[in-house]
Amino acid sequence: MASTRIREAREGDCADILRMIRELAEFEQLSHQVKISEEALRADGFGENPFFRCLVAEVVPASGELQGPRVVGYGLYYFSYSTWKGRNIYLEDIYVMPQYRGQGIGTKIIKKVAEVALQKGCSQVRLAVLDWNKKAMDLYKSLGAQDLTEAEGWRSFRFEEEAMKEMAGC
Amino acid sequence: MASTRIREAREGDCADILRMIRELAEFEQLSHQVKISEEALRADGFGENPFFRCLVAEVVPASGELQGPRVVGYGLYYFSYSTWKGRNIYLEDIYVMPQYRGQGIGTKIIKKVAEVALQKGCSQVRLAVLDWNKKAMDLYKSLGAQDLTEAEGWRSFRFEEEAMKEMAGC
Repeated sequence: MASTRIREAREGDCADILRMIRELAEFEQLSHQVKISEEALRADGFGENPFFRCLVAEVVPASGELQGPRVVGYGLYYFSYSTWKGRNIYLEDIYVMPQYRGQGIGTKIIKKVAEVALQKGCSQVRLAVLDWNKKAMDLYKSLGAQDLTEAEGWRSFRFEEEAMKEMAGC
Repeated sequence: MASTRIREAREGDCADILRMIRELAEFEQLSHQVKISEEALRADGFGENPFFRCLVAEVVPASGELQGPRVVGYGLYYFSYSTWKGRNIYLEDIYVMPQYRGQGIGTKIIKKVAEVALQKGCSQVRLAVLDWNKKAMDLYKSLGAQDLTEAEGWRSFRFEEEAMKEMAGC
Protein backbone atom coordinates (compact mmCIF):
# COMPACT_ATOMS: atom_id res chain seq x y z
CA MET A 1 0.00 0.00 0.00
CA ALA A 2 1.14 3.56 -0.70
CA SER A 3 2.24 5.63 2.28
CA THR A 4 2.76 9.36 2.87
CA ARG A 5 5.80 10.98 4.37
CA ILE A 6 6.59 14.59 5.23
CA ARG A 7 10.10 15.73 4.43
CA GLU A 8 12.05 18.95 4.00
CA ALA A 9 11.79 20.35 0.48
CA ARG A 10 14.84 20.24 -1.78
CA GLU A 11 15.69 22.72 -4.52
CA GLY A 12 14.55 20.15 -7.07
CA ASP A 13 11.02 20.32 -5.62
CA CYS A 14 10.54 23.93 -6.72
CA ALA A 15 8.63 23.06 -9.90
CA ASP A 16 6.20 20.96 -7.84
CA ILE A 17 5.93 23.67 -5.18
CA LEU A 18 5.20 26.35 -7.78
CA ARG A 19 2.53 24.14 -9.38
CA MET A 20 0.85 23.74 -5.98
CA ILE A 21 1.22 27.46 -5.10
CA ARG A 22 -0.81 28.14 -8.25
CA GLU A 23 -3.36 25.46 -7.40
CA LEU A 24 -3.80 26.91 -3.89
CA ALA A 25 -4.19 30.47 -5.21
CA GLU A 26 -6.78 29.20 -7.68
CA PHE A 27 -8.68 27.51 -4.86
CA GLU A 28 -8.51 30.82 -2.94
CA GLN A 29 -9.84 32.62 -6.04
CA LEU A 30 -6.86 34.95 -5.92
CA SER A 31 -4.62 33.43 -8.59
CA HIS A 32 -4.25 36.74 -10.45
CA GLN A 33 -1.96 37.78 -7.58
CA VAL A 34 0.64 35.04 -8.20
CA LYS A 35 3.76 36.60 -9.73
CA ILE A 36 6.42 34.29 -8.29
CA SER A 37 8.75 32.24 -10.51
CA GLU A 38 10.51 28.92 -10.01
CA GLU A 39 13.83 30.81 -10.15
CA ALA A 40 12.76 33.12 -7.30
CA LEU A 41 11.71 30.12 -5.19
CA ARG A 42 15.07 28.43 -5.83
CA ALA A 43 17.05 31.57 -4.98
CA ASP A 44 14.99 32.66 -1.96
CA GLY A 45 14.44 29.27 -0.35
CA PHE A 46 17.63 27.35 -0.98
CA GLY A 47 20.50 29.82 -0.62
CA GLU A 48 22.71 30.43 2.38
CA ASN A 49 20.22 32.60 4.29
CA PRO A 50 16.86 31.32 3.05
CA PHE A 51 13.84 33.63 3.20
CA PHE A 52 11.54 30.65 3.73
CA ARG A 53 11.56 26.93 4.53
CA CYS A 54 9.31 24.33 3.03
CA LEU A 55 8.01 20.87 3.87
CA VAL A 56 6.53 18.60 1.24
CA ALA A 57 4.16 15.67 1.59
CA GLU A 58 5.19 12.80 -0.63
CA VAL A 59 3.20 9.72 -1.52
CA VAL A 60 5.53 6.75 -1.68
CA PRO A 61 4.07 3.95 -3.80
CA ALA A 62 3.98 0.38 -2.55
CA SER A 63 7.00 -1.65 -3.54
CA GLY A 64 6.57 -3.18 -6.95
CA GLU A 65 4.75 -0.17 -8.39
CA LEU A 66 6.48 1.43 -11.33
CA GLN A 67 5.94 5.11 -10.54
CA GLY A 68 8.23 7.00 -8.14
CA PRO A 69 7.22 9.12 -5.11
CA ARG A 70 4.85 11.99 -5.86
CA VAL A 71 4.72 15.37 -4.09
CA VAL A 72 1.06 16.02 -3.23
CA GLY A 73 1.15 18.80 -0.65
CA TYR A 74 3.36 21.37 0.99
CA GLY A 75 3.71 23.66 3.97
CA LEU A 76 5.80 26.80 3.45
CA TYR A 77 6.88 28.81 6.48
CA TYR A 78 9.40 31.32 7.77
CA PHE A 79 10.62 32.50 11.14
CA SER A 80 8.79 35.55 12.41
CA TYR A 81 8.99 37.51 15.65
CA SER A 82 6.55 38.56 18.33
CA THR A 83 7.56 41.40 20.63
CA TRP A 84 5.41 39.71 23.27
CA LYS A 85 6.67 36.15 23.01
CA GLY A 86 9.83 36.12 20.89
CA ARG A 87 10.53 33.69 18.06
CA ASN A 88 7.58 32.39 16.05
CA ILE A 89 6.86 30.46 12.91
CA TYR A 90 4.54 31.89 10.30
CA LEU A 91 2.95 29.21 8.13
CA GLU A 92 2.43 31.15 4.90
CA ASP A 93 0.90 28.28 2.86
CA ILE A 94 -0.44 24.86 3.58
CA TYR A 95 -1.93 22.80 0.77
CA VAL A 96 -2.90 19.25 -0.12
CA MET A 97 -4.00 18.32 -3.65
CA PRO A 98 -7.79 17.70 -3.81
CA GLN A 99 -7.52 14.01 -4.69
CA TYR A 100 -5.34 13.40 -1.60
CA ARG A 101 -7.51 15.19 0.95
CA GLY A 102 -9.32 13.47 3.79
CA GLN A 103 -6.32 11.28 4.66
CA GLY A 104 -4.87 13.52 7.36
CA ILE A 105 -1.98 14.78 5.22
CA GLY A 106 -2.67 18.44 6.10
CA THR A 107 -2.68 17.56 9.78
CA LYS A 108 0.62 15.71 9.33
CA ILE A 109 2.16 18.82 7.76
CA ILE A 110 0.93 21.11 10.58
CA LYS A 111 2.19 18.67 13.20
CA LYS A 112 5.61 18.64 11.59
CA VAL A 113 5.63 22.46 11.57
CA ALA A 114 4.75 22.44 15.29
CA GLU A 115 7.66 20.04 15.89
CA VAL A 116 10.11 22.28 14.02
CA ALA A 117 8.79 25.33 15.90
CA LEU A 118 9.38 23.71 19.28
CA GLN A 119 12.87 22.54 18.25
CA LYS A 120 13.75 26.10 17.22
CA GLY A 121 12.50 27.69 20.44
CA CYS A 122 9.41 29.25 18.88
CA SER A 123 6.41 29.84 21.09
CA GLN A 124 3.73 30.31 18.42
CA VAL A 125 2.71 29.21 14.95
CA ARG A 126 0.61 31.80 13.15
CA LEU A 127 -1.24 31.59 9.86
CA ALA A 128 -3.96 33.35 7.88
CA VAL A 129 -7.09 31.80 6.44
CA LEU A 130 -9.89 33.13 4.24
CA ASP A 131 -13.16 33.60 6.10
CA TRP A 132 -15.17 31.39 3.71
CA ASN A 133 -12.76 28.46 4.08
CA LYS A 134 -14.67 26.93 6.97
CA LYS A 135 -13.14 23.49 6.51
CA ALA A 136 -9.63 24.86 7.05
CA MET A 137 -10.74 27.01 10.01
CA ASP A 138 -12.42 24.00 11.62
CA LEU A 139 -9.27 21.92 11.18
CA TYR A 140 -7.01 24.58 12.75
CA LYS A 141 -9.44 25.09 15.62
CA SER A 142 -9.71 21.33 16.21
CA LEU A 143 -5.91 21.29 16.53
CA GLY A 144 -6.02 24.07 19.13
CA ALA A 145 -5.62 27.29 17.13
CA GLN A 146 -7.38 30.50 18.10
CA ASP A 147 -8.99 32.87 15.58
CA LEU A 148 -7.34 36.17 16.56
CA THR A 149 -9.47 38.26 14.23
CA GLU A 150 -12.51 36.96 16.08
CA ALA A 151 -11.01 36.90 19.59
CA GLU A 152 -8.99 40.13 19.63
CA GLY A 153 -10.03 42.02 16.50
CA TRP A 154 -6.77 41.84 14.52
CA ARG A 155 -7.04 42.92 10.89
CA SER A 156 -4.41 42.41 8.20
CA PHE A 157 -3.12 45.43 6.28
CA ARG A 158 -0.86 45.46 3.26
CA PHE A 159 1.10 48.15 1.44
CA GLU A 160 1.86 47.21 -2.17
CA GLU A 161 4.76 48.42 -4.28
CA GLU A 162 3.04 51.55 -5.59
CA ALA A 163 2.22 52.82 -2.10
CA MET A 164 5.74 51.91 -0.92
CA LYS A 165 7.34 53.88 -3.75
CA GLU A 166 5.10 56.85 -3.04
CA MET A 167 6.12 56.76 0.63
CA ALA A 168 9.82 56.35 -0.14
CA GLY A 169 9.59 59.27 -2.55
CA CYS A 170 10.73 57.22 -5.59
CA MET B 1 14.50 73.63 18.12
CA ALA B 2 14.39 69.90 18.78
CA SER B 3 14.29 67.66 15.72
CA THR B 4 13.39 64.00 15.16
CA ARG B 5 15.45 61.46 13.31
CA ILE B 6 14.82 57.82 12.44
CA ARG B 7 17.81 55.51 12.78
CA GLU B 8 18.57 51.80 13.04
CA ALA B 9 18.32 50.51 16.58
CA ARG B 10 21.49 49.51 18.41
CA GLU B 11 21.79 46.82 21.07
CA GLY B 12 21.96 49.59 23.68
CA ASP B 13 18.42 50.66 22.72
CA CYS B 14 16.87 47.41 23.97
CA ALA B 15 15.82 48.83 27.36
CA ASP B 16 14.01 51.68 25.58
CA ILE B 17 12.47 49.28 23.06
CA LEU B 18 11.22 46.95 25.80
CA ARG B 19 9.71 49.92 27.69
CA MET B 20 7.83 50.95 24.54
CA ILE B 21 6.79 47.34 23.70
CA ARG B 22 5.09 47.34 27.12
CA GLU B 23 3.51 50.76 26.55
CA LEU B 24 2.15 49.63 23.18
CA ALA B 25 0.73 46.40 24.61
CA GLU B 26 -0.91 48.42 27.39
CA PHE B 27 -2.48 50.73 24.80
CA GLU B 28 -3.71 47.62 22.96
CA GLN B 29 -5.14 46.30 26.23
CA LEU B 30 -3.20 43.08 25.77
CA SER B 31 -0.24 43.68 28.08
CA HIS B 32 -0.80 40.40 29.95
CA GLN B 33 0.58 38.69 26.82
CA VAL B 34 4.02 40.36 27.02
CA LYS B 35 6.59 37.79 28.15
CA ILE B 36 9.68 39.06 26.33
CA SER B 37 12.85 40.14 28.18
CA GLU B 38 15.56 42.65 27.35
CA GLU B 39 18.02 39.74 27.09
CA ALA B 40 15.85 38.02 24.48
CA LEU B 41 15.63 41.23 22.45
CA ARG B 42 19.40 41.62 22.59
CA ALA B 43 20.05 38.03 21.57
CA ASP B 44 17.36 37.79 18.87
CA GLY B 45 17.79 41.21 17.26
CA PHE B 46 21.51 41.89 17.41
CA GLY B 47 23.27 38.61 16.74
CA GLU B 48 24.71 37.34 13.48
CA ASN B 49 21.41 36.21 11.97
CA PRO B 50 18.89 38.53 13.61
CA PHE B 51 15.28 37.41 13.93
CA PHE B 52 14.09 41.01 13.63
CA ARG B 53 15.28 44.51 12.76
CA CYS B 54 14.28 47.70 14.49
CA LEU B 55 14.16 51.41 13.74
CA VAL B 56 13.92 53.99 16.49
CA ALA B 57 12.68 57.57 16.40
CA GLU B 58 14.93 59.84 18.38
CA VAL B 59 14.27 63.41 19.45
CA VAL B 60 17.48 65.37 19.23
CA PRO B 61 17.38 68.46 21.47
CA ALA B 62 18.35 71.87 20.17
CA SER B 63 22.02 72.72 20.71
CA GLY B 64 22.61 74.22 24.10
CA GLU B 65 20.06 71.98 25.84
CA LEU B 66 21.51 69.79 28.53
CA GLN B 67 19.63 66.55 27.91
CA GLY B 68 20.78 64.08 25.26
CA PRO B 69 18.70 62.49 22.47
CA ARG B 70 15.61 60.60 23.58
CA VAL B 71 14.08 57.52 21.95
CA VAL B 72 10.34 58.22 21.60
CA GLY B 73 9.12 55.64 19.09
CA TYR B 74 10.06 52.48 17.23
CA GLY B 75 9.19 50.27 14.29
CA LEU B 76 10.12 46.61 14.61
CA TYR B 77 10.02 44.42 11.49
CA TYR B 78 11.31 41.23 9.94
CA PHE B 79 11.60 39.76 6.48
CA SER B 80 8.68 37.57 5.53
CA TYR B 81 7.75 35.75 2.33
CA SER B 82 4.76 35.67 0.04
CA THR B 83 4.42 32.71 -2.30
CA TRP B 84 2.64 35.09 -4.67
CA LYS B 85 5.07 38.00 -4.67
CA GLY B 86 8.30 36.88 -2.99
CA ARG B 87 10.18 38.85 -0.34
CA ASN B 88 8.15 41.05 2.01
CA ILE B 89 8.57 43.02 5.17
CA TYR B 90 6.27 42.42 8.11
CA LEU B 91 6.01 45.42 10.41
CA GLU B 92 5.30 43.72 13.72
CA ASP B 93 5.14 46.88 15.87
CA ILE B 94 4.97 50.58 15.26
CA TYR B 95 4.67 52.95 18.19
CA VAL B 96 5.12 56.60 19.13
CA MET B 97 4.90 57.77 22.75
CA PRO B 98 1.62 59.66 23.39
CA GLN B 99 3.25 63.02 24.13
CA TYR B 100 5.08 62.92 20.77
CA ARG B 101 2.09 62.03 18.59
CA GLY B 102 0.62 64.33 15.96
CA GLN B 103 4.05 65.36 14.66
CA GLY B 104 4.27 62.85 11.84
CA ILE B 105 6.80 60.61 13.60
CA GLY B 106 4.79 57.43 12.91
CA THR B 107 4.58 58.35 9.25
CA LYS B 108 8.35 58.93 9.19
CA ILE B 109 8.91 55.44 10.63
CA ILE B 110 6.61 53.79 8.06
CA LYS B 111 8.26 55.70 5.22
CA LYS B 112 11.66 54.50 6.36
CA VAL B 113 10.36 50.92 6.47
CA ALA B 114 9.06 51.33 2.90
CA GLU B 115 12.51 52.60 1.84
CA VAL B 116 14.26 49.61 3.43
CA ALA B 117 11.74 47.25 1.83
CA LEU B 118 12.38 48.63 -1.65
CA GLN B 119 16.16 48.51 -1.12
CA LYS B 120 15.90 44.84 -0.13
CA GLY B 121 13.76 43.86 -3.11
CA CYS B 122 10.56 43.43 -1.11
CA SER B 123 7.27 43.95 -2.88
CA GLN B 124 4.99 44.38 0.12
CA VAL B 125 4.88 45.67 3.68
CA ARG B 126 2.26 43.94 5.80
CA LEU B 127 1.07 44.68 9.32
CA ALA B 128 -1.81 43.92 11.67
CA VAL B 129 -3.99 46.42 13.49
CA LEU B 130 -6.75 46.08 16.07
CA ASP B 131 -10.20 46.84 14.68
CA TRP B 132 -10.97 49.55 17.27
CA ASN B 133 -7.77 51.46 16.50
CA LYS B 134 -9.42 53.63 13.86
CA LYS B 135 -6.75 56.33 14.02
CA ALA B 136 -4.03 53.84 13.05
CA MET B 137 -6.19 52.26 10.32
CA ASP B 138 -6.94 55.71 8.88
CA LEU B 139 -3.23 56.57 8.84
CA TYR B 140 -2.27 53.33 7.06
CA LYS B 141 -5.07 53.75 4.54
CA SER B 142 -4.11 57.38 3.90
CA LEU B 143 -0.61 56.11 3.08
CA GLY B 144 -2.03 53.62 0.58
CA ALA B 145 -2.50 50.40 2.58
CA GLN B 146 -5.36 48.02 1.94
CA ASP B 147 -7.35 46.29 4.71
CA LEU B 148 -7.09 42.65 3.59
CA THR B 149 -9.48 41.37 6.25
CA GLU B 150 -12.10 43.69 4.79
CA ALA B 151 -11.15 43.32 1.11
CA GLU B 152 -10.38 39.59 0.87
CA GLY B 153 -11.58 38.11 4.15
CA TRP B 154 -8.24 37.09 5.69
CA ARG B 155 -8.36 36.08 9.35
CA SER B 156 -5.39 35.57 11.65
CA PHE B 157 -4.97 32.26 13.45
CA ARG B 158 -2.48 31.37 16.13
CA PHE B 159 -1.33 28.13 17.74
CA GLU B 160 0.17 28.67 21.19
CA GLU B 161 2.73 26.47 22.92
CA GLU B 162 0.23 24.11 24.52
CA ALA B 163 -1.44 23.29 21.19
CA MET B 164 1.97 22.95 19.54
CA LYS B 165 3.16 20.48 22.16
CA GLU B 166 -0.04 18.49 21.83
CA MET B 167 0.44 18.33 18.06
CA ALA B 168 4.10 17.41 18.30
CA GLY B 169 3.22 14.66 20.77
CA CYS B 170 5.36 16.11 23.60
